[in-house]
Amino acid sequence: MIIGVDMGGTHIRTGLFTSQGRLQNKSIKIHYGNLPPQKVIDLVILEVNNILKKEGLDLFNINAMGVGFPGHVDFKKGIALTTSNLPQWDDIPLRDILEDRLKIPVCLDNDANLAALAEHRFGAGKDAENMIYLTVSSGIGAGVIINGKIYRGNRGTAGEIGHTTLDINGPVCTCGKRGCLMAMASGIGIANIAKGVVREGKKTLIKDLAQNDINKITAKVIAEAAFRGDELAENLIEQAAKYLGMGLANLVEIFDPEMIIVGGGLSKIRQKFLELVKEVAIQRIPKQLRDSVNIVSSPLGSDAGIIGAASLVITERNQNRGD
Amino acid sequence: MIIGVDMGGTHIRTGLFTSQGRLQNKSIKIHYGNLPPQKVIDLVILEVNNILKKEGLDLFNINAMGVGFPGHVDFKKGIALTTSNLPQWDDIPLRDILEDRLKIPVCLDNDANLAALAEHRFGAGKDAENMIYLTVSSGIGAGVIINGKIYRGNRGTAGEIGHTTLDINGPVCTCGKRGCLMAMASGIGIANIAKGVVREGKKTLIKDLAQNDINKITAKVIAEAAFRGDELAENLIEQAAKYLGMGLANLVEIFDPEMIIVGGGLSKIRQKFLELVKEVAIQRIPKQLRDSVNIVSSPLGSDAGIIGAASLVITERNQNRGD
Repeated sequence: MIIGVDMGGTHIRTGLFTSQGRLQNKSIKIHYGNLPPQKVIDLVILEVNNILKKEGLDLFNINAMGVGFPGHVDFKKGIALTTSNLPQWDDIPLRDILEDRLKIPVCLDNDANLAALAEHRFGAGKDAENMIYLTVSSGIGAGVIINGKIYRGNRGTAGEIGHTTLDINGPVCTCGKRGCLMAMASGIGIANIAKGVVREGKKTLIKDLAQNDINKITAKVIAEAAFRGDELAENLIEQAAKYLGMGLANLVEIFDPEMIIVGGGLSKIRQKFLELVKEVAIQRIPKQLRDSVNIVSSPLGSDAGIIGAASLVITERNQNRGD
Repeated sequence: MIIGVDMGGTHIRTGLFTSQGRLQNKSIKIHYGNLPPQKVIDLVILEVNNILKKEGLDLFNINAMGVGFPGHVDFKKGIALTTSNLPQWDDIPLRDILEDRLKIPVCLDNDANLAALAEHRFGAGKDAENMIYLTVSSGIGAGVIINGKIYRGNRGTAGEIGHTTLDINGPVCTCGKRGCLMAMASGIGIANIAKGVVREGKKTLIKDLAQNDINKITAKVIAEAAFRGDELAENLIEQAAKYLGMGLANLVEIFDPEMIIVGGGLSKIRQKFLELVKEVAIQRIPKQLRDSVNIVSSPLGSDAGIIGAASLVITERNQNRGD
């Protein structure tokens, strides 16, 4: 059997797969994104052991594990270099740590790369040679498929579209730069903007829903306020969708892909969110390219990450066996 | 023999090559970027005939021609879709027009793609698997080499970094969008910004050097003013370098390339220009990636386009022959 783990900014998703890639069991653990690396690693190990217990299995039954990390990953060395979604990650040899503690082979990759792999093999991108999976969640990242394969670049960090500058006068990102796409359109970004607005004393339902505690303002709370008709929350989400549309248009100019698949928790917060993103993107693409790119929402949804993680392991194992 | 043509925003460069790729003769024709497509095509044909005449050859001696176009190109169909560097180009079947008029096989590609190919085969990028050639000239474009090959995307328009949004409140680009990298850091962009400043009545040597004619303000004039110590001109060039550095950092986040080669006329206007571009780029790249990308200036210089054009033709012919 194989394990696929998707370490998100607020959730750890764990899946148990047969070696043919069939999902047997899965779990979701919420961690609120405020734990240091060691605690997150402990949680991953706990989740792996829990899912095995549920199935009456132990680590001896596991051939390998694939892990998606939400940030810059050195793929060859298995190092989690840095992330803006979780605190204190800085050059942590995550692959080796997990191999050492679990005593099974581990593959580490960027989370969006793995979701892209899953969508390319089993989801919306099955027939696409060149496609992009864009995850809009706590952070924003992209997995890029070129000529049918994950494009990782030199060290393995390609696709970090969340940290491309889109508005040099925009808000400061968790990475320290100003105006990254992520600072304006990710869950963390929207929440930070909302915190600023609430601090200024503007009247909004966001404050009430966060029980007057500024630290409780999250994208989910803002989406809830928007759903209840709060104008300020609606504007924040609309603004995020507009920035995301510009980011998508940038991806089209750079990659001229057949398809962009949008996934991640935030892409699902409001039905019309993706419609607005697409509308803005299409306006900003040369008219000659408007029909040649297909922008769709992720059919695999929140399972894309764990499916991709398991899928990577199966591929790597087959390659090592010479299949 | 083979012909390579590089159609720029202000120059047409033509090269005559042996079928082994040795440059035999070359010419440069300045056209000031204000001619309609038909006139530019006439100039290309005139230049081809002139260079043949100089060598005592005619079209019967030519096996094929490669042409670089400064804008969005549909590579498979040989169509010049659109460009911000020349007026009125809109879905023009340039390859077929040239084949029809010259009666030789023609390959049409984006100009930056061809320069990237040249640098990858003969220039700074010889050992790079994944690299980017960035041309900073009338416009800004990129040629992307992935796994040793030009990456063109779905229709052939990949690498149009010049039209990615970098500053949503920036000046309006010739493409109609606001804040494209090209609107702030290309020759056309800098000239347009300078025109605005001169119109506002600010004191600057740019006005004198342009003989008080606003239409004569070009990047070259601005560079000359900066060279003579004009503060406003210096600031314009510094600002362009800063935007370009941000654009480079975006490319690193997206592609994680081994190398970025910067070419094009504007990259040579001042010695310290590229130094500032690199400085800004490096500041904006995660520290873990700073050593893994090499930012250099183009060793092939203004010949990169024609060398790449000839090189593409040689490759395509060999592929058709099954070599």
